[in-house]
Amino acid sequence: MTPASATLPSHAIGVFDSGVGGLTVARALMQRLPEENIIYFGDTARVPYGIKSVETIAHYATQIAQFLLERRVKLLVVACNTMAAVAARAIADLSPVPVLDVIDAGARAAAAASRTRRVGVIGTLATVASGAYDRAIHAAAADVEVRSQACPLFVPFVEEGWLTHPATRLTAEEYLAPLRGAGLDTLVLGCTHYPLLAPLIQEVVGAEIALVDSADTVAADAAELLERLGLRNRVGRGEHRFYVSDVPQRFQQIGERFLGRPLTGVQVVGW
Amino acid sequence: MTPASATLPSHAIGVFDSGVGGLTVARALMQRLPEENIIYFGDTARVPYGIKSVETIAHYATQIAQFLLERRVKLLVVACNTMAAVAARAIADLSPVPVLDVIDAGARAAAAASRTRRVGVIGTLATVASGAYDRAIHAAAADVEVRSQACPLFVPFVEEGWLTHPATRLTAEEYLAPLRGAGLDTLVLGCTHYPLLAPLIQEVVGAEIALVDSADTVAADAAELLERLGLRNRVGRGEHRFYVSDVPQRFQQIGERFLGRPLTGVQVVGW
Repeated sequence: MTPASATLPSHAIGVFDSGVGGLTVARALMQRLPEENIIYFGDTARVPYGIKSVETIAHYATQIAQFLLERRVKLLVVACNTMAAVAARAIADLSPVPVLDVIDAGARAAAAASRTRRVGVIGTLATVASGAYDRAIHAAAADVEVRSQACPLFVPFVEEGWLTHPATRLTAEEYLAPLRGAGLDTLVLGCTHYPLLAPLIQEVVGAEIALVDSADTVAADAAELLERLGLRNRVGRGEHRFYVSDVPQRFQQIGERFLGRPLTGVQVVGW
Repeated sequence: MTPASATLPSHAIGVFDSGVGGLTVARALMQRLPEENIIYFGDTARVPYGIKSVETIAHYATQIAQFLLERRVKLLVVACNTMAAVAARAIADLSPVPVLDVIDAGARAAAAASRTRRVGVIGTLATVASGAYDRAIHAAAADVEVRSQACPLFVPFVEEGWLTHPATRLTAEEYLAPLRGAGLDTLVLGCTHYPLLAPLIQEVVGAEIALVDSADTVAADAAELLERLGLRNRVGRGEHRFYVSDVPQRFQQIGERFLGRPLTGVQVVGW
């Protein structure tokens, strides 16, 4: 008989985010690992985290990690750049299962990809202020220079669905101006909302700069890690459960934009 | 001896908002009633409310009202349009002291001011979806037609400090287009952030439309009500206390932009 505490391949991957943005990470995991069970938690009642203090973000992040661990996940994926930026250590300290996060994944991918050894990072105020990407990129490759830029209006534009609107373009031009002509060849989309703006960002920064989407890289890391630990699920199609702390205005519409498929079976946790 | 439960003129006015926006209401109260003690609560950890569900907003609103009532306020002022839109009744039900809110004040001012009997209202998604302004304006004057428009990007633009940026102007032109040519002569700024965009909004809608700022009207209502109840404080200069649930990024800078004066003595409530 298997002891109650043993981790099994059939256990789910726990993915969490401050809201719906992390559904881009869930989507990448579903594409790469269609047999895996996934439990997603989006803290839609308290989103956005990007402007909150470090203490508050860490408190919320550990609360959510506990929630997922109680559901016996075999792996935690921190899909929120802001949480990864300021609470990765706190989450790792309390978790008996491995923890992957979008910052670590994106930083290593960028460090490996850059030929000019100059990498740009865009993210929320909290992510950029934390310096987490700088540290993670330098840990992966000490010779890479990092230029960071906070883009606070990108999340609201994505949630409004203005992905190619002239106002979004004007905003992108202003935010990204300091990154142009800086010799970058790689730009990390350091927020889960930003991949939806990738075509616009690409136009503004120019085709010679490669964009790194952490959702793809963290999904690749998860596949590799589960394989190595002998925890890949290989039976049937994975089940996907979604927990949120609120069902906000336009939730279904915005959630499906991120997930890229119908969003069903959503349960509300009354925190 | 005065019984412990009696309300005294020296008791504070309790003002609350989902974040810093309500500081425009605190500011209007300070200008009109400089002798009054004021306790402000801003739910900066959980801001913004504008996209949350009705249930969650009502839950948070009653929690904050209780917090202020425990501090023996003589009057509650709901400075957040979103909370007033969906939780005014819940707050009134639990409060032993009078409750004023920005929607009721703004609606009555607009109904009284309009000559064309056509009034526009702009606000968050939750405020507009609630229909609260429509109901309040019709209660004040059944013959007034109301046209409403949600402007979800206005709050992020104000918090970014882009009050006159070309991207803000483009956004305002798009949001406000349906309101032009509709025969309006009065437009209610149905969100406490919007007064900071008043010059831009005025330019876009044209000088013939009068803007109603609920902060001013609710402060006038408070003065009149306290006078009538014999609860005006007439001794010395008022003391102002500020409670927040988080000290977010750029809090001081953004808060002072709203309050129009230095923001000191802020205490964090660890919810």
